[in-house]
Amino acid sequence: MSAPRAAARERGPGLGPEPGSSTQTSHRLLAYSDALLSIIATVMILPVAHTKIHPDQKLGESVQQLLLAKIAVYLMTFLIVTVAWAAHVRLFQVIEHIDDVLALLNLACMMIITFLPYTFSLMASFPGVPFGIFLFSVCAVIIGLIQAVIVAYGFYHPHLLNPQIQESENQNFYKRHILKIILRGPVLCFLAAIFSFFFIPLSYVLLGLVIVFPHLSRLITWCKTKVLGQRGEEEEHHSLETFTFYLSEPLSKERVEAFSDGVYAIVATLLILDICEDNVPDPREVEEKFHGSLLEALSQYGPNYLAYFGSFVTIGLLWFVHHSLFLYVTKATRLMGLLNILSLAFIGGLPLAYQLTSEFAEKSHNEIEAIQVSCVITFFASIFQFAIWTTALLNEEETLHAFARYGGKEHAFMFAKLALYPCVSLGAFFLTCLLSEFSTAIFHLMQIVIPFAFLALRIFVRIFLTAIKSVMSLSRRKVVLLEEEEACLSPNETLS
Amino acid sequence: MSAPRAAARERGPGLGPEPGSSTQTSHRLLAYSDALLSIIATVMILPVAHTKIHPDQKLGESVQQLLLAKIAVYLMTFLIVTVAWAAHVRLFQVIEHIDDVLALLNLACMMIITFLPYTFSLMASFPGVPFGIFLFSVCAVIIGLIQAVIVAYGFYHPHLLNPQIQESENQNFYKRHILKIILRGPVLCFLAAIFSFFFIPLSYVLLGLVIVFPHLSRLITWCKTKVLGQRGEEEEHHSLETFTFYLSEPLSKERVEAFSDGVYAIVATLLILDICEDNVPDPREVEEKFHGSLLEALSQYGPNYLAYFGSFVTIGLLWFVHHSLFLYVTKATRLMGLLNILSLAFIGGLPLAYQLTSEFAEKSHNEIEAIQVSCVITFFASIFQFAIWTTALLNEEETLHAFARYGGKEHAFMFAKLALYPCVSLGAFFLTCLLSEFSTAIFHLMQIVIPFAFLALRIFVRIFLTAIKSVMSLSRRKVVLLEEEEACLSPNETLS
Repeated sequence: MSAPRAAARERGPGLGPEPGSSTQTSHRLLAYSDALLSIIATVMILPVAHTKIHPDQKLGESVQQLLLAKIAVYLMTFLIVTVAWAAHVRLFQVIEHIDDVLALLNLACMMIITFLPYTFSLMASFPGVPFGIFLFSVCAVIIGLIQAVIVAYGFYHPHLLNPQIQESENQNFYKRHILKIILRGPVLCFLAAIFSFFFIPLSYVLLGLVIVFPHLSRLITWCKTKVLGQRGEEEEHHSLETFTFYLSEPLSKERVEAFSDGVYAIVATLLILDICEDNVPDPREVEEKFHGSLLEALSQYGPNYLAYFGSFVTIGLLWFVHHSLFLYVTKATRLMGLLNILSLAFIGGLPLAYQLTSEFAEKSHNEIEAIQVSCVITFFASIFQFAIWTTALLNEEETLHAFARYGGKEHAFMFAKLALYPCVSLGAFFLTCLLSEFSTAIFHLMQIVIPFAFLALRIFVRIFLTAIKSVMSLSRRKVVLLEEEEACLSPNETLS
Repeated sequence: MSAPRAAARERGPGLGPEPGSSTQTSHRLLAYSDALLSIIATVMILPVAHTKIHPDQKLGESVQQLLLAKIAVYLMTFLIVTVAWAAHVRLFQVIEHIDDVLALLNLACMMIITFLPYTFSLMASFPGVPFGIFLFSVCAVIIGLIQAVIVAYGFYHPHLLNPQIQESENQNFYKRHILKIILRGPVLCFLAAIFSFFFIPLSYVLLGLVIVFPHLSRLITWCKTKVLGQRGEEEEHHSLETFTFYLSEPLSKERVEAFSDGVYAIVATLLILDICEDNVPDPREVEEKFHGSLLEALSQYGPNYLAYFGSFVTIGLLWFVHHSLFLYVTKATRLMGLLNILSLAFIGGLPLAYQLTSEFAEKSHNEIEAIQVSCVITFFASIFQFAIWTTALLNEEETLHAFARYGGKEHAFMFAKLALYPCVSLGAFFLTCLLSEFSTAIFHLMQIVIPFAFLALRIFVRIFLTAIKSVMSLSRRKVVLLEEEEACLSPNETLS
């Protein structure tokens, strides 16, 4: 190991650029990339939420007719951006330091990624024309090529690499492995681009494959090890040093948090845009209709304000739960990452739900449907958070802080926090089915009660735990008494 | 000092929650708040950019008539959100750890802040009606009250405070000081709310005061010390221990970066929304007008794509310059923070500029005006970045890393990076004035050339420095020769 490398390692990753050199820590570049990617992943919900539906139309039909294409665009964008994000996370786990050239290459990569939603819009509007899918594939191939250039540049300047890979004898192996991870998507897209001119359905299948491939390959490996036993995996382990840690569990907790924060922040602020554009009355209308009384004119928008605050509270509290959860997590496995992304996809759908509740409030056929859609979206967003926690518990030695593991007081408290939203949204859903007349009242009551429930949750859990303990100790005392009785009886029995 | 406090200090701020307690590090809460605040500050440019202007109208008039109110809303929102952000930064420099209650209170505070743009929209539409300004003032007072509750809660649970304040004898003084900082805005707003029913102009003056007050008070203190000499300030210094560091220089570099990243990220992604909504042709239209050729239909949108990529490249590169600059900065003074915010306000204006360039491309009267507006906005955004650097140089001992100070190679390189955009945008502006026929060509050429200029900048600077050095050494050799000649001559002279 040469002297400057040793110096670089001793200095550690957080101490800023090496004096006089152009090498920088990648922290801020990654934070900026996370912000860009999370915004792009979520922002396509806006065209969905802006779709105008006539209040006298049945929501069921109109959803099918109008929203399907836009929701498809949103989901495709969200999933493909998360795939790109996961590849980006892996790439910058190998390359730990950057310089100006890498920063500019990364920006070029981001520029192409932010253009992807447009190609999806084209695909959704013209599903039978090959141009949309061709354009998408070309973008994906360009992204792959830029990332390959980044890898090549990184391995050509080894001081930019992760110190463990820097020192490794197997640098070429690592290089090939990371190139394989980065290029498999673009290769599939290249094939999709070629087939788009002959047989479009095959192209769509290939695109779908890009999204599920990482998880599919993981599943296949998992099945293989189950069938062939643990031997094969262990062999691999030994030959590849820290391979598993750096390349196979790709999600650094910090970047999962940064990406999630971006999604929560943009979703929380999307609705104020609509409020500002649509709910400012026209001065002339106020003069004519309301005799110049602004307050009266604004009172008609009441449901919209409620929808805005309701949306913000829900998203804010779901962020709060996510934040609490990740305080206890030490490492995010790939499955936890996948569940997190699914949860975020539903979070992204919340503006749509609240757009519905504000548009159909009070006076239309679709009021109950709108509230039920909101409940369902909230339920799925929160149940996937709960699933992250459950998955973490399966591997609690590796993934959780010691004090948060099964059995402690913190564990019970976390459980209560995570269970609150799924229970309440499910409860509200069934209540609206039963008491359809009071659905709006139930929904708003739920929104008002939940924040206070969170504030008082610690007290509730403490009371509950004390109650359980006293019940347990009572029953234990009974058991002890019974045992004593038995013990008193048994001598007689043995005597008799 | 009690034992648990000492333990808390030894554990350091970055090591996660204390086992079994509810105290958490505030890092992620602050990152999320920064993301929310930066998005809210910037997102109000969208209504400005979406204002439709007829291509046959003169841009000069229409800007005056239609855009003024919306631009005012954008600027007011941006400035007031940055004031709220600065107060938030100070607050969480005093309170370093959080618990669930503080996290929920902070979310409530964020909810009211994100509602502020709506009150500005009301004000802009109904400047003569007191309700808009009243609503804004009420929101500001609520924000102030929530933050006061946060302060009270923090000082009631001292283990949440900054360790230096925890140990200080002057805790009550700190409490009063931070309350003063947080409540002076809301008190002014409360007065504005009262006056809004009697005399509206005074309310607006009071609101303006909220924005300029922090800087005004700084200026007054500065003038006072100039007039009364250094004595007064130094006395304060001694009595308040680390007072200046924690309360008077309120901007932690990390949060300035996080806020700026949020603004750059949201601005960079705003345009793709418009592209996705407006530039997907209608399937029926494609069938009728273009005989089913999608490619032909899309070719009419060429200028929009150019505008999108141009916008992304400009914002990306300005982020890159900002990133490079803050790598060299160790501490952000208040003046640097102010300049940064001014730069960000112009960055927020870029989507407007590119909306103009894409709408008026080629075929209207306003082509040159649109390009010139773009150049002016780019120029101001980049010149304020340059001003941050200049301000940092005034205090370079305190604010810059040693290797980046005046005279080094890195200094010259940074200078070149910062000077590139102001020079190019100014050049493009004057070229469009002179060669008005080729203005579009000049503008697009500029956008294509700049990324390559950044890539090659290090080489240019190196060549330039080598050239200067060789010229210097040549001239020095000449000087030496001359001196030698003089030295040869002088004995004669002294002889004569």
